Amino acid sequence: MALTVGLRPLTRALLRPWARVPGAALGRPAAGSGDGVRCFGSPRVLVEPDPAAVGVAVMKMRNPPVNSLSLEFLTELLISLEKLENDKTFRGIIITSDCPGIFSAGLDLLEMYGRDPAHCAEYWKAVQELWLRVYLSNLVVIGAINGISPAGGCLLSLSCDYRVLANNPKYAIGLNETLLGIIAPFWFKDVLVNTIGHRAAERALQLGFLFPPSDALQVGIVDQVVPEDQVQSTARSVMAQWLAIPDHARQLTKNLVRKPTADRLLQQRDADIQNFVRFISRDSIQKSLHVYLEKLKQKKG
Amino acid sequence: MALTVGLRPLTRALLRPWARVPGAALGRPAAGSGDGVRCFGSPRVLVEPDPAAVGVAVMKMRNPPVNSLSLEFLTELLISLEKLENDKTFRGIIITSDCPGIFSAGLDLLEMYGRDPAHCAEYWKAVQELWLRVYLSNLVVIGAINGISPAGGCLLSLSCDYRVLANNPKYAIGLNETLLGIIAPFWFKDVLVNTIGHRAAERALQLGFLFPPSDALQVGIVDQVVPEDQVQSTARSVMAQWLAIPDHARQLTKNLVRKPTADRLLQQRDADIQNFVRFISRDSIQKSLHVYLEKLKQKKG
Amino acid sequence: MALTVGLRPLTRALLRPWARVPGAALGRPAAGSGDGVRCFGSPRVLVEPDPAAVGVAVMKMRNPPVNSLSLEFLTELLISLEKLENDKTFRGIIITSDCPGIFSAGLDLLEMYGRDPAHCAEYWKAVQELWLRVYLSNLVVIGAINGISPAGGCLLSLSCDYRVLANNPKYAIGLNETLLGIIAPFWFKDVLVNTIGHRAAERALQLGFLFPPSDALQVGIVDQVVPEDQVQSTARSVMAQWLAIPDHARQLTKNLVRKPTADRLLQQRDADIQNFVRFISRDSIQKSLHVYLEKLKQKKG
Repeated sequence: MALTVGLRPLTRALLRPWARVPGAALGRPAAGSGDGVRCFGSPRVLVEPDPAAVGVAVMKMRNPPVNSLSLEFLTELLISLEKLENDKTFRGIIITSDCPGIFSAGLDLLEMYGRDPAHCAEYWKAVQELWLRVYLSNLVVIGAINGISPAGGCLLSLSCDYRVLANNPKYAIGLNETLLGIIAPFWFKDVLVNTIGHRAAERALQLGFLFPPSDALQVGIVDQVVPEDQVQSTARSVMAQWLAIPDHARQLTKNLVRKPTADRLLQQRDADIQNFVRFISRDSIQKSLHVYLEKLKQKKG
Repeated sequence: MALTVGLRPLTRALLRPWARVPGAALGRPAAGSGDGVRCFGSPRVLVEPDPAAVGVAVMKMRNPPVNSLSLEFLTELLISLEKLENDKTFRGIIITSDCPGIFSAGLDLLEMYGRDPAHCAEYWKAVQELWLRVYLSNLVVIGAINGISPAGGCLLSLSCDYRVLANNPKYAIGLNETLLGIIAPFWFKDVLVNTIGHRAAERALQLGFLFPPSDALQVGIVDQVVPEDQVQSTARSVMAQWLAIPDHARQLTKNLVRKPTADRLLQQRDADIQNFVRFISRDSIQKSLHVYLEKLKQKKG
Repeated sequence: MALTVGLRPLTRALLRPWARVPGAALGRPAAGSGDGVRCFGSPRVLVEPDPAAVGVAVMKMRNPPVNSLSLEFLTELLISLEKLENDKTFRGIIITSDCPGIFSAGLDLLEMYGRDPAHCAEYWKAVQELWLRVYLSNLVVIGAINGISPAGGCLLSLSCDYRVLANNPKYAIGLNETLLGIIAPFWFKDVLVNTIGHRAAERALQLGFLFPPSDALQVGIVDQVVPEDQVQSTARSVMAQWLAIPDHARQLTKNLVRKPTADRLLQQRDADIQNFVRFISRDSIQKSLHVYLEKLKQKKG
């Protein structure tokens, strides 16, 4: 974990210069920002134009300690993504984590435990929305995966156009839902099958595999594994390669390839929400969540 | 073949201790078994609780000489599988062969040659049923493939959750139907595509490839190749890994991944039977079968 | 390019002996051929029975300089393919190029630039027809890819049953449409996904990858890479392997695997033509084509 902790000062340093960049430097006046800085960010989602690459934003997830995808965090992510999509100055996003050692721990169990059905439904709709927005984004989306990335964190990674994983044996990635006694929804499964093929997905999903970097690369759940201090620079190089392609042709082609998978959810989005609510409301599942959350508390305590 | 023959005494030895295990030792009274032994077995299907692993049954196919899937043998397999599914003491099955050198030679041509349409239809329904039952089994099903596994024998292997193949160059596995002038039905094709991908399946199916162990592993038609005397122990280790996952989550996930493939047959099961009967009843096909069966007779004679 | 140029005299030599083969040598009288030679060929499509293999035709594309798939060339290809399909003496075709260094440059932009919608529609229908005829051919179709093979040239390659690529680093293959600012139609995408899998296709299509031989082999967009002077002989050896399978079983199996992909186009063929015409008629696309064609002119001039 030393390497990760070591990175934090660097991260801060990267943030500071950006904070001083005037909005005008990006070709238009700063809007809704008191100190004249153009800022899409929110408390949990730091968005900065890449100082070295025109048209690229770096989006840092900062929902400590583990970037759990709470409803509030999801909402902030969605707002930031929408703003970036609508801002013509941006053509690509690098998604990365500001929480040392963790890309994202995935869905927030507290949004599902002891909540009423309406809340669970609202939560699930936001989870769907995040996937649809990232998976079908018109922007090039590169995942700079600088930490462990289980379950929903893995889904977020899989929704990017390209995945660069830091070569730290602790940084495993996978859809490990079965280990918690729950199951991934069909569209998590579809995205995994698209990425690593049917057989590898069948096995990984049932066994709840969390792939360490070398296995992750071999099975194809990530595209590249690099030393931890090269994750961001590699993501930038890859971004340059993707941005060399005319946007319109790339976007239509991305849509051609990904739309059929997204459509499977879009055609039954409400039913999928109902399914989730029904599943999560079961006594047996609530009990499993209780046991699991108690364990987490004891760990912390 | 020496290795295989050498294994037989061991197999017998494994059977004998089981024969002495009283049903009560499994936590409930023996039922329908004269000597107090719990026994799902039938003349051709030996079912024994794994002496070393709680909840695991070993199912040995013994329909000499080549474990041809005759209607009678299929029926016994189906009954054993159903009993195991309904018996709460079992969570996994290891399927293996008691016939040296042969896992299963596949469908029994004698059930298709010179038979009336009603018989062929009944036979095909049983073949479908075996696939559906193994492919969608709630139990973990591991194939301990200790012999050659062509055509229907390969389908049975592909329907398991995991395949361990003995590293003997004679133990080839594949859907070699075209070599006999017949064609695999669409659901054999679907399962092969799911396992090794579209392109490899396209080529293997047309050329009737029988993959020897090293090629089988490389193309992914089996998951693991081990020395012949380690097939059973490896299957047991793998089983332990699968049984570490909560059953309910694993079963739902398996269903999530496999149901769409099974549904393609379920939605047109009768049409598939009619197709088979029509195809097999053609004069040209009956002639091909005749030629092939005559060749087999001469070999034996 | 030295190697390729060096090959031309050889190619001519191969053609000359064929020109002297009397039709009667193929077991039936020559028809519609002034000098008694059986000849399916046309000015741009040379078809010759393989002198060394019964039942095999070699089809050489000769539409210099780059085998652009013009409407006229497509029409000749289609007529030749239809004749071969209907001629019981042939069981397989080897498709190769007679233009040094280029297998086929793909679609002819001059058939799309400055043309009226009716012409574009007619052209697109011919492109569809070529794909359907090669992809679903009852004959074994082997691609002896002796040159670069971008875009439509790659599609033609992907539609073969097997691809042998000459090991020359200049001979790249891929669907590079996005580089020109256009997009591959869905059925190009489907065939690429079938061949190299969903993830590799997603990336290659968006980035317009042209794979040099070693990468092409690794990703699986070709089946074999051999020294340039062994492409034809390797294609012949592979053909022998495919012809060892009974035709009827192989054809039905090919249809089983490929028909669902072809059906996706067949079910919406007119809509696909309208889509193409609408897309290509856009001012922005016409302008892109203009720019590109002007560049090509300058290169030549």
